[in-house]
Amino acid sequence: MAKKQIVVGIDIGGTNTVFGFVNREGEIISEAKVKTKEFEDVEVYVAALYEKINVTFRKLGNSYELLGYGIGAPMGNINNGTIEYPSNLPWKGIIPLADYFKRYTTLTVTVTNDANAAAVGEMIYGGAKNMKNFVVITLGSGLGSGLVVDGKLVYGANGFAGEIGHTAIRPGTSNRMCGCGRKGCLETYVSASGIKRTVLKIMADSIEDSPLRELSFNELNSKIIHEAALKGDHIALKAFEHTGEMLGFKLADVVAHTDPEAIFLFGGLALAKDLIFEPAREYMEQHLLSIYKGKVKLLPSELSTQNAAVLGASSLVWTLKEI
Amino acid sequence: MAKKQIVVGIDIGGTNTVFGFVNREGEIISEAKVKTKEFEDVEVYVAALYEKINVTFRKLGNSYELLGYGIGAPMGNINNGTIEYPSNLPWKGIIPLADYFKRYTTLTVTVTNDANAAAVGEMIYGGAKNMKNFVVITLGSGLGSGLVVDGKLVYGANGFAGEIGHTAIRPGTSNRMCGCGRKGCLETYVSASGIKRTVLKIMADSIEDSPLRELSFNELNSKIIHEAALKGDHIALKAFEHTGEMLGFKLADVVAHTDPEAIFLFGGLALAKDLIFEPAREYMEQHLLSIYKGKVKLLPSELSTQNAAVLGASSLVWTLKEI
Repeated sequence: MAKKQIVVGIDIGGTNTVFGFVNREGEIISEAKVKTKEFEDVEVYVAALYEKINVTFRKLGNSYELLGYGIGAPMGNINNGTIEYPSNLPWKGIIPLADYFKRYTTLTVTVTNDANAAAVGEMIYGGAKNMKNFVVITLGSGLGSGLVVDGKLVYGANGFAGEIGHTAIRPGTSNRMCGCGRKGCLETYVSASGIKRTVLKIMADSIEDSPLRELSFNELNSKIIHEAALKGDHIALKAFEHTGEMLGFKLADVVAHTDPEAIFLFGGLALAKDLIFEPAREYMEQHLLSIYKGKVKLLPSELSTQNAAVLGASSLVWTLKEI
Repeated sequence: MAKKQIVVGIDIGGTNTVFGFVNREGEIISEAKVKTKEFEDVEVYVAALYEKINVTFRKLGNSYELLGYGIGAPMGNINNGTIEYPSNLPWKGIIPLADYFKRYTTLTVTVTNDANAAAVGEMIYGGAKNMKNFVVITLGSGLGSGLVVDGKLVYGANGFAGEIGHTAIRPGTSNRMCGCGRKGCLETYVSASGIKRTVLKIMADSIEDSPLRELSFNELNSKIIHEAALKGDHIALKAFEHTGEMLGFKLADVVAHTDPEAIFLFGGLALAKDLIFEPAREYMEQHLLSIYKGKVKLLPSELSTQNAAVLGASSLVWTLKEI
């Protein structure tokens, strides 16, 4: 009997590295992890991770053929197979991750960032299966994006295309400091931390009472704000509306660049459904140039949030195998 | 002897339609025109234009092989071979221009807009010959753009990618009406008409004397402003600086979308060289995310301005022939 083809998707986070074996249908057959932060030396980390993947693979028995390794990591650069200056990993500088992996294997090894992985994942396993031109926006602690043009992920000249989270929402007039060192970037408004900042701004400006006033900034999170909004809390509702507006406004600019068929929202904030989709859709439509009006779908990601990072990371291996 | 391959580039303007026969090196062998505005009926126009091209081709003698027809037109849609709702042509609605041409010929016929044509022209004949990822910004009465990703022009889902002139420079805070019906679009600041508006704004705000104060809005043009700036006129200099700043600021956003190797400026305003390039470069660098800093070249187009529209229109035929 022919062996079933599978790929491994590896999601490198600051605390854990989670990996899973994924089939062409996007089902995760087996999952395991290693602790990223316990490895001071990245070469030791790769050796341990590779061996852990091997051990896990052997446990699956003899019926699978492994095609390759897809790695998603913050600041992953697909052109170079590197992680470049990650801010929340134990290692510094430019890390030649694919090269380290290739010491052990002759199979395909790809490295990319989380948002690019999410975009390819959407195309391979999710709602963009039949689309050639679309954009995925990931709403986590920051705002990432992956652009697909003519069926291919846009890498750019340096492998860093799709940093829409760091376009300016309010040129010269915003005081919101961004982690990137500038002010007023889109992700300072539209992200899990962005909406927290907006809640604080609204509480500072308004006099409305709200249970949110009992919580410190560090206690607040987007889930609490979401739950408050569902209960009708005016401050939380206003914060979602404002966040959606900012997003919709900038999505109109995104459309003017690559004219996508659809934009997918992915990640925690997207789970708030209409609370974020409605104002985003309304503001996007309002700001679209007439030739685009009514043509761009704003959709929730169809990747399950729980395993999306592993799925996304794994998906790139299929695209390379199918070329 | 083998015949030399040539293509025809057709530039459809509101007054004239200029066409030229172009070889692979980007030399125009012969040029002629018909008067666009004399044709009420677009099918009659196509018949006359096709015959004029034929007559001109026959005059070249027997040593050339014609490969196809490349058409550049305002609102030209490459996906559909149409011109869609042009505002400055004698015809209305959606015009199936490629289909009309194909009544007479079995050769390749492509239709695209001026900015996309300029981008492909830069890749085939100009400064982007060895580039895979770049952007061309055309600065005429409006601001157009063509994006090239991985060696291919980005068309988008609807054939309308690259409308960067209609991204917002100042969300909600600008009073500048745009021809598209919205306010504050980039082209209301950065274009031949944009810089005129900026000159008026500066004259309204300041009390400095200037020969520009002798001219009406309708008498002013970007060439006059350029000449005044070269003579040290403070209002003209300030207008160029402001225009370059606005451009540079938005180019940083463009980079965050597709991570290009270079951005080319094309058209009248780009001829002002350092007057526009210096502030644009400075502001772009200042607003770039750190991973892009120092990596994106801002360059003048290498297509001669005089024939650029014909060259650009012709260039698409080569890309289709070479696939």
